[in-house]
Amino acid sequence: MKSTGTLPFTSEPIQTDALVIGAGPVGLFQVFELGLQGITAHVVDALPYLGGQCIELYADKPIYDIPALPVCTGRELIARLEQQIRPFKPAFHLDQEVCELRRRDGGGFDVETSRGLRFQTQTVFLAAGVGAFTPRVLKVDGFEQFVGKQVFYREPDGKDVAGKDILVLGEGDDALRLALTLARTNGDGKAKSVTLMHRRDQFKASAGLIEQMREACDDGRMRFQVGQIIGCSAVEGQLKSVSIIDDLAHKSELPVSWVVALLGLSPRLGPIAGWGLDLDRKQVKVSTADFCTSEPGLYAVGDINTYDGKKKLIVCGFHEATLAAFAAAAYIRPDEIVHLQYTTASPKLHQLLGVSPLGN
Amino acid sequence: MKSTGTLPFTSEPIQTDALVIGAGPVGLFQVFELGLQGITAHVVDALPYLGGQCIELYADKPIYDIPALPVCTGRELIARLEQQIRPFKPAFHLDQEVCELRRRDGGGFDVETSRGLRFQTQTVFLAAGVGAFTPRVLKVDGFEQFVGKQVFYREPDGKDVAGKDILVLGEGDDALRLALTLARTNGDGKAKSVTLMHRRDQFKASAGLIEQMREACDDGRMRFQVGQIIGCSAVEGQLKSVSIIDDLAHKSELPVSWVVALLGLSPRLGPIAGWGLDLDRKQVKVSTADFCTSEPGLYAVGDINTYDGKKKLIVCGFHEATLAAFAAAAYIRPDEIVHLQYTTASPKLHQLLGVSPLGN
Repeated sequence: MKSTGTLPFTSEPIQTDALVIGAGPVGLFQVFELGLQGITAHVVDALPYLGGQCIELYADKPIYDIPALPVCTGRELIARLEQQIRPFKPAFHLDQEVCELRRRDGGGFDVETSRGLRFQTQTVFLAAGVGAFTPRVLKVDGFEQFVGKQVFYREPDGKDVAGKDILVLGEGDDALRLALTLARTNGDGKAKSVTLMHRRDQFKASAGLIEQMREACDDGRMRFQVGQIIGCSAVEGQLKSVSIIDDLAHKSELPVSWVVALLGLSPRLGPIAGWGLDLDRKQVKVSTADFCTSEPGLYAVGDINTYDGKKKLIVCGFHEATLAAFAAAAYIRPDEIVHLQYTTASPKLHQLLGVSPLGN
Repeated sequence: MKSTGTLPFTSEPIQTDALVIGAGPVGLFQVFELGLQGITAHVVDALPYLGGQCIELYADKPIYDIPALPVCTGRELIARLEQQIRPFKPAFHLDQEVCELRRRDGGGFDVETSRGLRFQTQTVFLAAGVGAFTPRVLKVDGFEQFVGKQVFYREPDGKDVAGKDILVLGEGDDALRLALTLARTNGDGKAKSVTLMHRRDQFKASAGLIEQMREACDDGRMRFQVGQIIGCSAVEGQLKSVSIIDDLAHKSELPVSWVVALLGLSPRLGPIAGWGLDLDRKQVKVSTADFCTSEPGLYAVGDINTYDGKKKLIVCGFHEATLAAFAAAAYIRPDEIVHLQYTTASPKLHQLLGVSPLGN
């Protein structure tokens, strides 16, 4: 595994037996299976909420192939898993990516997130699905230097918009809602101009928001522009304007103080790709006996892993998380024999689950 | 695979792509996963009802480790799976064991059940759990020759009890209920005597039945005897009496016309052990890529299989059934590419499931 240098001091690292990266259905069930082994987990996810792809891609769509759940939405599946893992009181650390992971000299791993949170953990479970869901970014020459200053990929909350020419990119609820909010600002805090831009005059946003946006354009509070950014101009290190091209291939220049691009989220493997694990086409190779990667103590479960016969199905991830938990228990407590016990009959598991033997 | 000779002619064999042996949770989910592949299955089980161990061992006990079902009883789990597989209209053939299985010359398998039902099937899925649940039998020298004539391991319904000395063995609801029913018979059809025997004066039966049994003993309609059978005497090929030993080691002789032993069910691997499959301590060895046994087209899923890392958990069986279904689809239709499709989005799967894209 690649060493990525000394971690910067932020705060005392959190000590834990298990760190789960990814709070999708498989990451959540990983917490459950670890809980049955008496192991409490910390969970990190790039999204600000639980559920991963289930919430990001099909929150309200029906899923039919979860065993013994003839139909449930992504949201329902996550709610059920949240309920199931409650007895094990996992600690969630959301809205942050794991950006560093390296093996400790004394065993286990040092992990750090994009928010500077640090962990010292015995085991790591990569349940990161197709990767971290992060905002889609614009590919415009010279744009990168302005990110976080004049170019934003999230709503720039708490920043002063007064007197600014603001260009909002996007076609979803979040883009239209932001443009309307900016267009509504009155008095001293008012933006100088608000432009919504999308490559065509069609939107994924809800009908109500589209209607409000049209009204705001008719009122002159904002305007809508069909087009895409193809370049930018800066003066003394400040972004001044963007070059745009519309659907008829006409080019024009638009003065901007800020560009806020809300183009949706896209998954990316992110720093995992640089951890030196055995990969096969961006998937992490694992053993089917324990779902361990090429690094002892580091497991990969769900859509992120690969092995002979692999199918990217939630039902398979549940199995993988189960065997990984058994393997991790043996890894963390090498002197104990890990017995298979059944939740129906085991007093030890009943105690961990906080239930009486009669299920109350 | 061992050839077991020519099958006796019984009726036209049932032609099918898939035969699932075992109607426990994994066998039922196997039907579901085959259904998603467009393959309709026939299912055989030794028990007269669906559910296998879930119903036989923990019908009313809570299970906590089915993913996204924080708690459910064995019975509830089976009911949910029954509902889930309904769109695929499986044909169930219950209360019979598969007693013959052999490879056909032209491909696929010939299968025959203990009731003489025959199948010609392309693929077979062993989802037989710990084996077929069959009645526990008595180990008494010389007893075997009377089984089905004077010794019964199931309630001998429809048989004339008039004038017979009947010994019922057991401690469960079924044993006490049968003894009480026989003791209640009046008039011409009356048994000569009814004795309930168990090795101690304690029962697993419900309190109400125990009370009724005590009353019937007090009334002289039946009697209860503490003891176990240690031998038997026959005259001219007819069972006449059994030797018993009680809890104080006293021996005595009890005249009997019939012995009905209701000692519960116990699983046994049965004829599977003789099919020539690669076994490891009575478990069927499989590949983790497709859960195929050493015989192409013959898959083993759930508690009956073994592989490196195997855990006998329902959640693992669900995964195994999923990969086995993919493998079987490729085996049955070698010229087609089996694509992974998602039930959330695939119109083909929606059609198979009989749902509209909006989940109605």
